Amino acid sequence: MEKLILIICDGLGDIPVNGKTPLQAARKPHIDALARDGECGLMHVFGMGIIPGSDTAHLQLLGYDPFLFYKGRGVFEALGAGIALGEGDVAFRSNFGTVDGRMNVTDRRAGRISTEEARELGKSLRGMKIDGAEVIFRQTVEHRGVLVLKGKGLSPNISDTDPHDGGPLLKARPLDKTREAKRTADILNKFTMLSNKILSAHPLNSKRKKEGTPPANIVLARGASVFERAPTIKGLYGISAACVAGGALYKGVGKYIGMDVLDVKGATGTKDTNLFSKAKAAEKALKNHDLVFLHIKATDSFGHDGDFKGRVGMIEKIDRIMPILRKTGAHIILTADHSTPVALKKHSFHPVPILAYGKLVRGDNVKKFDEIECAMGGIGHIEGRELMPLILSLLGKAKMFGT
Amino acid sequence: MEKLILIICDGLGDIPVNGKTPLQAARKPHIDALARDGECGLMHVFGMGIIPGSDTAHLQLLGYDPFLFYKGRGVFEALGAGIALGEGDVAFRSNFGTVDGRMNVTDRRAGRISTEEARELGKSLRGMKIDGAEVIFRQTVEHRGVLVLKGKGLSPNISDTDPHDGGPLLKARPLDKTREAKRTADILNKFTMLSNKILSAHPLNSKRKKEGTPPANIVLARGASVFERAPTIKGLYGISAACVAGGALYKGVGKYIGMDVLDVKGATGTKDTNLFSKAKAAEKALKNHDLVFLHIKATDSFGHDGDFKGRVGMIEKIDRIMPILRKTGAHIILTADHSTPVALKKHSFHPVPILAYGKLVRGDNVKKFDEIECAMGGIGHIEGRELMPLILSLLGKAKMFGT
Repeated sequence: MEKLILIICDGLGDIPVNGKTPLQAARKPHIDALARDGECGLMHVFGMGIIPGSDTAHLQLLGYDPFLFYKGRGVFEALGAGIALGEGDVAFRSNFGTVDGRMNVTDRRAGRISTEEARELGKSLRGMKIDGAEVIFRQTVEHRGVLVLKGKGLSPNISDTDPHDGGPLLKARPLDKTREAKRTADILNKFTMLSNKILSAHPLNSKRKKEGTPPANIVLARGASVFERAPTIKGLYGISAACVAGGALYKGVGKYIGMDVLDVKGATGTKDTNLFSKAKAAEKALKNHDLVFLHIKATDSFGHDGDFKGRVGMIEKIDRIMPILRKTGAHIILTADHSTPVALKKHSFHPVPILAYGKLVRGDNVKKFDEIECAMGGIGHIEGRELMPLILSLLGKAKMFGT
Repeated sequence: MEKLILIICDGLGDIPVNGKTPLQAARKPHIDALARDGECGLMHVFGMGIIPGSDTAHLQLLGYDPFLFYKGRGVFEALGAGIALGEGDVAFRSNFGTVDGRMNVTDRRAGRISTEEARELGKSLRGMKIDGAEVIFRQTVEHRGVLVLKGKGLSPNISDTDPHDGGPLLKARPLDKTREAKRTADILNKFTMLSNKILSAHPLNSKRKKEGTPPANIVLARGASVFERAPTIKGLYGISAACVAGGALYKGVGKYIGMDVLDVKGATGTKDTNLFSKAKAAEKALKNHDLVFLHIKATDSFGHDGDFKGRVGMIEKIDRIMPILRKTGAHIILTADHSTPVALKKHSFHPVPILAYGKLVRGDNVKKFDEIECAMGGIGHIEGRELMPLILSLLGKAKMFGT
């Protein structure tokens, strides 16, 4: 039985700064050894000229066409935050924010409130039911959270309450003429006002006011998306899979496609994540799964911050867990969901490097894993939709056509 | 605001003669510097095994699927010759030819009559109206011209009057049972006989007869095509574009898609074209356009002539304008619409080399721009439909899918 570890280093692709990309600048002997002993290539996740989002890209790379399976980011965030979703539930990405007396959003991140305080405030919003729908708010990291409306007769076709660029709090509006959209917008508006009432009265906010920090006195919602059950990766591709990730989005994608999403201590989805702990969890998960999806978020964060040195350092950290993964004897694929060049501080169109290593990998002349060398690799220049077929091939599950 | 110069060297792709392609044989330090500092690849304009025509290839490369937008070459030639077309007008490529007394076409190029003499003859065909349709003939280069029927109730679905391989003058026939096709064929036949009558009586033809050169005593038409307005490149892709070209076809394609087609002194579309004048025009056009399409025809002409040395010389001429273009700071893409190998003297299936240079280009290991080195480049092996997405990416206009 072949096994495979799929490592997605978020946003890893880059362009040179002073002649070198972070991958070229990093000392990464173990990753380069995998490149030397394996095979490399470049991958356009969606094809030339399309900048991949993280959510859609992960679906694509895991063999789920986002044109069929992508309903918006909210459901993935909600699943990743551990909320069990049922068919037709509507999920939003949400924030604690600050409004003034006239309902102007003066800070849509409530002064980047700490996770600890935000969690405390979140408790006061538990156990709500509005117009027959269950309303679940769950705080995740700092000011961030997810909001879920559960029940029948809901619609994701409504507008945001989050004004994004500041200004007055928005009223959710139905975006079509259905009763469901009208009802969902009403419920969201009622919840929003209720959140303001409850949070304004919270002692922690009185304390924040006294300290001169913006009170987290409202929950803002954006990006309504509906949950529809997807076929499991086991059902669709015949492989059992585990997910080792810190970020809620990635855990949510894993849960959405029926992976076993592991709870890994120290996997935070941030720059101080514990990679050794994640590698150990992956190693263990290989025992009873064909595929382990190992997600590392921080490479992307350093890209968004324009931090070349930080990105190099993160790559070198990733390099240090490779011996653990290589020793498992599993196939390894190392790649990214998109490029986030340090010089651009945002997702870009540039294809991502990809590396495959293991028993069934033929090999090529590439000796270093970076964007320049990978262009000449044996995997060639592929598209994201080809990744799952490659995974299945290395797992010994490619299908024969003809005789 | 990013800018881009798209240089299409017509027919540039080749295969080796005595071990080298013209691109490999040419001394072209500036182009090679762009390759070294940029990224290369190979491009099948329509995919493996399809030999691109110049008209269809240009549409494809400029982001206009020829299966939707190609109605025949006549309309592009007519637009390029400066004729304003309206919806439903029918355009033909046409030639001055020579017929004998029994209407046999004895020379379908009228002894390759000079541009000067042909232009003089063309004047005698001005201001015609037949059966309610305006008939416009415009001479272009030597024996060549375009013929346009303007008005309502016309159809392109008629056969040619040009017998192509000699023989009797053909009668245009309707190719379907519509009244429009019948009427259009009638008008074309009437014009053809009228052209014979007028041209036969022209003093210049009497002079030619006396000199023993074939009289240009008829206008032959082929390839009826209908004009239908296309969305502009600004509307379709959000980019403003200028066209710097000599050949009528390329100016016509530019006009068809709403480019500003510049009138550049010395841009002839022939081997003696003034490349410096074109480069200067491109440099200037960058000031108020996102994209400048710079077309160079002569590379193709040398290929059709089987002239290896001439082709090498032309490439070296092109090399000398690169410093002007590079200094603009714009992105540069250098490629071709098809291969016209010297050894074959005609369009071939071989993919064309492509080079991209500029701020957002990642780079690769290719150090020389030729068909062999480009195979290992970072752009990879792409298809023509990917060129516009690449252009949009380099212009900073790639779209994000997901979040």
